[in-house]
Amino acid sequence: MDQPDPAALADLAASLPDGVVVTDPDLTQKYRLDRSQDDAAGTPAVVVRAEDAAQVQAAVRWAARHAVPVVPRGAGSGLSGGSSAVDGGLVLSLERMRAIEIDTESQVAVVEAGAFNAEVKQAAAEHGLWYPPDPSSYEICSIGGNIATNAGGLCCVKYGVTTDYVLGLDVVLADGTLVTLGGKRIKDVAGLPLLKLFVGSEGTLGIVTRAVLRLVPAQAPRATMVATFPNVDAAARAVVAVRRTLRPSMLELMDRASINAVEDYRPMGLDRTAGALLLAQSDAPGVSCGAEVELMRAACEAAGATELFVTDDPDEGEMFVEARRIAIPAIETTGALMLEDVGAPVPLLPDLLAAIEEVAAAYDVRIPVIAHAGDGNTHPIVVYDAGDADSEKRAREAFREVMQRAIDLGGTITGEHGVGRTKKELLPTQLGPDVMALSRRVKDALDPQGILNPGAVL
Amino acid sequence: MDQPDPAALADLAASLPDGVVVTDPDLTQKYRLDRSQDDAAGTPAVVVRAEDAAQVQAAVRWAARHAVPVVPRGAGSGLSGGSSAVDGGLVLSLERMRAIEIDTESQVAVVEAGAFNAEVKQAAAEHGLWYPPDPSSYEICSIGGNIATNAGGLCCVKYGVTTDYVLGLDVVLADGTLVTLGGKRIKDVAGLPLLKLFVGSEGTLGIVTRAVLRLVPAQAPRATMVATFPNVDAAARAVVAVRRTLRPSMLELMDRASINAVEDYRPMGLDRTAGALLLAQSDAPGVSCGAEVELMRAACEAAGATELFVTDDPDEGEMFVEARRIAIPAIETTGALMLEDVGAPVPLLPDLLAAIEEVAAAYDVRIPVIAHAGDGNTHPIVVYDAGDADSEKRAREAFREVMQRAIDLGGTITGEHGVGRTKKELLPTQLGPDVMALSRRVKDALDPQGILNPGAVL
Ligand SMILES: Cc1cc2nc3c(=O)[nH]c(=O)nc-3n(C[C@H](O)[C@H](O)[C@H](O)COP(=O)(O)OP(=O)(O)OC[C@H]3O[C@@H](n4cnc5c(N)ncnc54)[C@H](O)[C@@H]3O)c2cc1C
Ligand SMILES: Cc1cc2nc3c(=O)[nH]c(=O)nc-3n(C[C@H](O)[C@H](O)[C@H](O)COP(=O)(O)OP(=O)(O)OC[C@H]3O[C@@H](n4cnc5c(N)ncnc54)[C@H](O)[C@@H]3O)c2cc1C
Repeated sequence: MDQPDPAALADLAASLPDGVVVTDPDLTQKYRLDRSQDDAAGTPAVVVRAEDAAQVQAAVRWAARHAVPVVPRGAGSGLSGGSSAVDGGLVLSLERMRAIEIDTESQVAVVEAGAFNAEVKQAAAEHGLWYPPDPSSYEICSIGGNIATNAGGLCCVKYGVTTDYVLGLDVVLADGTLVTLGGKRIKDVAGLPLLKLFVGSEGTLGIVTRAVLRLVPAQAPRATMVATFPNVDAAARAVVAVRRTLRPSMLELMDRASINAVEDYRPMGLDRTAGALLLAQSDAPGVSCGAEVELMRAACEAAGATELFVTDDPDEGEMFVEARRIAIPAIETTGALMLEDVGAPVPLLPDLLAAIEEVAAAYDVRIPVIAHAGDGNTHPIVVYDAGDADSEKRAREAFREVMQRAIDLGGTITGEHGVGRTKKELLPTQLGPDVMALSRRVKDALDPQGILNPGAVL
Repeated sequence: MDQPDPAALADLAASLPDGVVVTDPDLTQKYRLDRSQDDAAGTPAVVVRAEDAAQVQAAVRWAARHAVPVVPRGAGSGLSGGSSAVDGGLVLSLERMRAIEIDTESQVAVVEAGAFNAEVKQAAAEHGLWYPPDPSSYEICSIGGNIATNAGGLCCVKYGVTTDYVLGLDVVLADGTLVTLGGKRIKDVAGLPLLKLFVGSEGTLGIVTRAVLRLVPAQAPRATMVATFPNVDAAARAVVAVRRTLRPSMLELMDRASINAVEDYRPMGLDRTAGALLLAQSDAPGVSCGAEVELMRAACEAAGATELFVTDDPDEGEMFVEARRIAIPAIETTGALMLEDVGAPVPLLPDLLAAIEEVAAAYDVRIPVIAHAGDGNTHPIVVYDAGDADSEKRAREAFREVMQRAIDLGGTITGEHGVGRTKKELLPTQLGPDVMALSRRVKDALDPQGILNPGAVL
């Protein structure tokens, strides 16, 4: 990729306040990678740390004029190389746009894209309100990134994913135009449903600068159940059974390898000998440690659970949730990772997990698994030895094979992390040529020059 | 609009099984109007009553070849002229495509587009499952129409609208290609979010032939509250208060005129002297007639309710819901109607309702109001005398003015019925030129010939 003309870069720097435009390689270096540590990432020519939407517009107009690729970037916690830099490109960072305003009467948060998920949750909580979407990374990811990936999380098994909470968006289009879609209306069907087209578009159709997010009254107290199983299959069957009649507000799975990685990283008292663990919560109001959680316990027992523990103590519950949340950082300490995000219809969860075990054996790699099991969404994590070419080759093949097996089961290569750059190769296999062509038409209509996040998704 | 060439029509008829292609004017006449009785509707040259997706494809390919406009049509219960026929056009009716399959393990319904909402609900209920979206018209509208309009209803104040339940779609595009988007996966972010682009696109981007709909376990028993108020303003303030801390599963409003229209049409024992009535339900599990409904009662009392009635008897509750549901048919017996669907952020509901009263007075027209009040979505119904040109003129001006007032309040011209043809004039005022241009780009990318539902929305 060509480097932008130095005179053009100087123009850009001159047109924006001091400190907004960064070209010092020591600094731009930090904007190369997201959390997937994608080796194919390039080196950006320039980073714009916009302070407001007008600066985003100015940067995009400049990029359009000079045909410079633009990679939108939130907090860089992505796991698919969606914000991997492009050689000679511009990284448009939203990290400085963090304002949050809670409108308690309308029950919405009006949020700049760079605000962290945890900051929005916290601001809402101060008013007795709740912003449900809760990726495990909620303390280190931005709302803009959540919207761009349509992020999921732990409570989405009951409360839905990011798109279900987005009422309004300000988006800067590929030519620098700022459009406002939706707003504080709970229901609004006026015109084509363009709002939703941007949620999950991974920065390829526009740059989100502001969002109006739906809030709901604070969640009721939760009861927590932890169940251990002799193997992953039994745990997966329990998930299918629970989902058949109950609406847990959390239903997560960890396999033995991830349990042990967490215990090595930070001892939390998990049972290292368990084949798999299910972590479930119920927030059915008024049923503190009552009906729903008891029914879950019974379903798990019937599915062969070996140990069952139920608590309505919030701190105790939160400790288990924390154990689940640190699984990725814990596994990161054990080697280099390729993170998967494959999903399948819930009843096929046992098959998907079996397929992953088969792939691990076939390619002789370690693939610990954590899963938003209640949604059929799993995170097999292929661990390899970064220095060892053979290990890396086997890992890469296993990574690909897991996605292929998910597709074979009528599943998906990504449930919540996005396609980004690391899962792009298998997208046509999942979608087929007609859907790919349709996607291309929509992309071309919105970004005819192809400057927005080129190389991601399509 | 030109008529299609008779030879071309004969080709179409020959290419499809007997009875699928209809050109007899006595029969095609029935496909001219939807429930809005839009006078501007044209007369179709041909109606195709497709039996499967392949026939839909064949009809669309034929239409594309001969540049014939295609109006997709479900059950014709629409209130915006979205399925008004176009002179010389083809009406593509999905009424014969009604198959429903419930996958209990995946908790989804796989449904052909013509199946009625009530049929899907019923099929799900036979398995202890629930399809929440419940337009008042649920017994007379199709899932395809619900998807095309992103239909709302009574329980969406807690359970969301149609788009929240659509996991997969088969769509026939403007060139006759059939694409399958999504599927039985609860979570799937692979590729651009095209699925949601079709939900609410009012038949202008593609024709839905099949949908995979998310089901949830059966709803818990509901307690019902009915509260009467001296005037609409007090009722609207009660809505704002209830919404602040509670999550009712229904929160509907009727004004005095609509109460009386219902009582005239079918006596249900509503209080004819009330200025307004709120109908609320709570399904907070285990709280039969308990906590949540009591809190709603308290909020209504504080807001000045004159009479309060609470019941946990399902039949009694359903009777009140039925009274609310028959409001439109009841008001239809009192004159010719122009149905509005304006919305505003919930705290501005009192202002919106006040604006409607002002418009009624200014134009000397009757505008009874019913509302999905908990979502800030209202249905002012402008009643006029069909024979009387002056009455009709004033009604038309009032209809327009109500939409303008909603826009002035930061609201919307349509919360759930869609723009169709009857609300099109005000769409640019609400969206502005940049969003209109963006919509046009998306439309042109998907339907370059402009054959899909021309004249609707854009
Ligand atoms: C430990 C750990 C746990 C995780 N758990 C979850 C989980 O439970 N659920 C889940 O969904 N994800 C999870 N993730 C993945 C990640 O946190 C999410 O994808 C998150 O939404 C990314 O947000 P970000 O601000 O870090 O985005 P980035 O990584 O900066 O970017 C992600 C993508 O969004 C685009 N983007 C960012 N901001 C904007 C914007 N303003 N406008 C347009 N495009 C933009 C980028 O171009 C890129 O394509 C986890 C990650 C980690 C490290
Ligand atoms: C008494 C009454 C009460 C109502 N209450 C509500 C309510 O509470 N909430 C609500 O949202 N609506 C309500 N409506 C409006 C109406 O019932 C809904 O808009 C419904 O979704 C329309 O479905 P239909 O099958 O009748 O669609 P139609 O009227 O046939 O068509 C509606 C629109 O959808 C398009 N369309 C239909 N099928 C397809 C398809 N398969 N593919 C692509 N496009 C298609 C048409 O082109 C048209 O633009 C009510 C109507 C009545 C008469």
